[in-house]
Amino acid sequence: MRIILSGFGVVGQSFAKLLLSRSEDLYAKHGLKPRIVGVFDSKGSAASSAGLDLNRLLEVKKKYGNIRKYHNKEKDANGLDMINGMDAEVLIETTPSNYKDAEPGMSHIVNAMKKGLHVITVNKGPLALAFPSLIELATYNQVQLKFSGTVGGGTPILDYAKNSLRGERIVSFQGILNGTTNYILTNMATGLTFKAALADAKKKGYVEADESLDIDGFDAAAKLVILANWIMDMKVTIKDIKRTGIRDVTNGEIKKAASKDCAIKLVASCDRDLIVSPKEIPLDDPMCVNGTLNAITFNSEHSGQQTITGRGAGGIETASSILRDLLDIKQEMSRIEIA
Amino acid sequence: MRIILSGFGVVGQSFAKLLLSRSEDLYAKHGLKPRIVGVFDSKGSAASSAGLDLNRLLEVKKKYGNIRKYHNKEKDANGLDMINGMDAEVLIETTPSNYKDAEPGMSHIVNAMKKGLHVITVNKGPLALAFPSLIELATYNQVQLKFSGTVGGGTPILDYAKNSLRGERIVSFQGILNGTTNYILTNMATGLTFKAALADAKKKGYVEADESLDIDGFDAAAKLVILANWIMDMKVTIKDIKRTGIRDVTNGEIKKAASKDCAIKLVASCDRDLIVSPKEIPLDDPMCVNGTLNAITFNSEHSGQQTITGRGAGGIETASSILRDLLDIKQEMSRIEIA
Repeated sequence: MRIILSGFGVVGQSFAKLLLSRSEDLYAKHGLKPRIVGVFDSKGSAASSAGLDLNRLLEVKKKYGNIRKYHNKEKDANGLDMINGMDAEVLIETTPSNYKDAEPGMSHIVNAMKKGLHVITVNKGPLALAFPSLIELATYNQVQLKFSGTVGGGTPILDYAKNSLRGERIVSFQGILNGTTNYILTNMATGLTFKAALADAKKKGYVEADESLDIDGFDAAAKLVILANWIMDMKVTIKDIKRTGIRDVTNGEIKKAASKDCAIKLVASCDRDLIVSPKEIPLDDPMCVNGTLNAITFNSEHSGQQTITGRGAGGIETASSILRDLLDIKQEMSRIEIA
Repeated sequence: MRIILSGFGVVGQSFAKLLLSRSEDLYAKHGLKPRIVGVFDSKGSAASSAGLDLNRLLEVKKKYGNIRKYHNKEKDANGLDMINGMDAEVLIETTPSNYKDAEPGMSHIVNAMKKGLHVITVNKGPLALAFPSLIELATYNQVQLKFSGTVGGGTPILDYAKNSLRGERIVSFQGILNGTTNYILTNMATGLTFKAALADAKKKGYVEADESLDIDGFDAAAKLVILANWIMDMKVTIKDIKRTGIRDVTNGEIKKAASKDCAIKLVASCDRDLIVSPKEIPLDDPMCVNGTLNAITFNSEHSGQQTITGRGAGGIETASSILRDLLDIKQEMSRIEIA
């Protein structure tokens, strides 16, 4: 299977490493032989229709900070040129999310699908801004659009709700979907001010380059859009979310919550309304997880409340979700070939 | 789809109610038209090749305490006669679990599979005593053997580990798999003695007729057998589990654990060894749930620790898992018909 990889940051590199470490097993167990034929990011590109040498690609990236030196060429292919010009079956989109115009990811995904490529995205921007129309475009072009890694990182929250609960009706759900704000709120509960807790989270590398994406709830809202569309069959975008971040949460409020055996968490909820907002959660609620953990509780019609918790981010975790999507695409492709 | 239902207790009746309430939706969404053509339990039986009237069946059971009066006949069909004599595609086995010889469930399941019926069991006994050979028998007879409801009740723990985590390696897992002992231990942490907590659990209807199944860890051990076989590809039975129950847990030990911010839970774990035993769990571990809740943590190679919590029992919850299994069987049957 020929793959174009858009973005070669932490997730892109983790995915390359995962393919290297799992290549034998993937072929033996799943008949999957992935070849990355092109990679591009904001700094450069590398391509080979026979498949790039991933060890060398990773070395070059480590040594020079960009992948242009893979070929020792000066001229780079533009991402869109690569998508439009190269023979491939799958685009993996891992460039950073933005919630203004979702570019450049939006153009990558749209062009790839129009050209008949299946798409795996861990970039939430395009889905947050245009989930319903991207699904339509995928259907129209008869390609698959996968996005397991956008919610829960390596924790298969979307798959659980969609597949493991098949035949069941999910009535509502609420979750802690952003690890960074959960880390900050957890530290504020030990007495740190918001400023100090934010500074600590930045030092640990947990905060997005644009801190507003975490702090003001954009990341959680984007995940809520994806869940609402995918699980609840709603047709919504990020504009439909009532969004409040954690900037105004005070240590006083956190103390007051603690006196009631509760903690303040940034909760994304889908009941009648779609809301991202700080909220008191009882300490003994299974959803009340600490640190960078994520958690989500589904209220189902017959099988009660069910909560999944896990790490919501991380390079290798997200890479593992891309691999799951790739296995799905492979399986679906073989099914169509048989039929 | 013609179904024989073995056992008409809480789960069997809940399943009948679920079919009644979901019949339109099941046909519209999944093309499934289930007909229960025969029901039997220890007290009587009812059968109709055109499909039993489930409303009447439930009424008769409520009014007379058994289903024999459905036909106003004196003579009852024996369960095995019904399985061997009636035309049907699926047996649903819901009689109580026993871990001595697993009868009568074992004979029901074996006879049904030999006759070419797919089997859904929520009875754990046969799986605990003979998981590997029952899977072999199913394969040999080209039938499906499903058992979603045996672990986690309505919470699809088995499906999550097998399907949602496909392409991932689960390295080890540990869980609180028995709600009754968790309820007792939770109450003991508030100061109740074991005796008083057990009496309270009995009053609430949480304890099996044979209390030893809960208290001495047989139920948790049976679930561990199922998980180890299904998820870890081990070939084990309940004899391979090192099992210690909660009879000897003292309030002193629970207090000591609490002083270290831990709680004592009956934990079933699969690492190198398969163990059911009381164990200290940190209070802030996502697995540390209270009351009758179940929880399980999977340690995966790439996507980290993931915990699922939910109600582990209950009639309607378990019935919903049977329905999921039925949808799976239907889907698999159509796939085979196409091929």
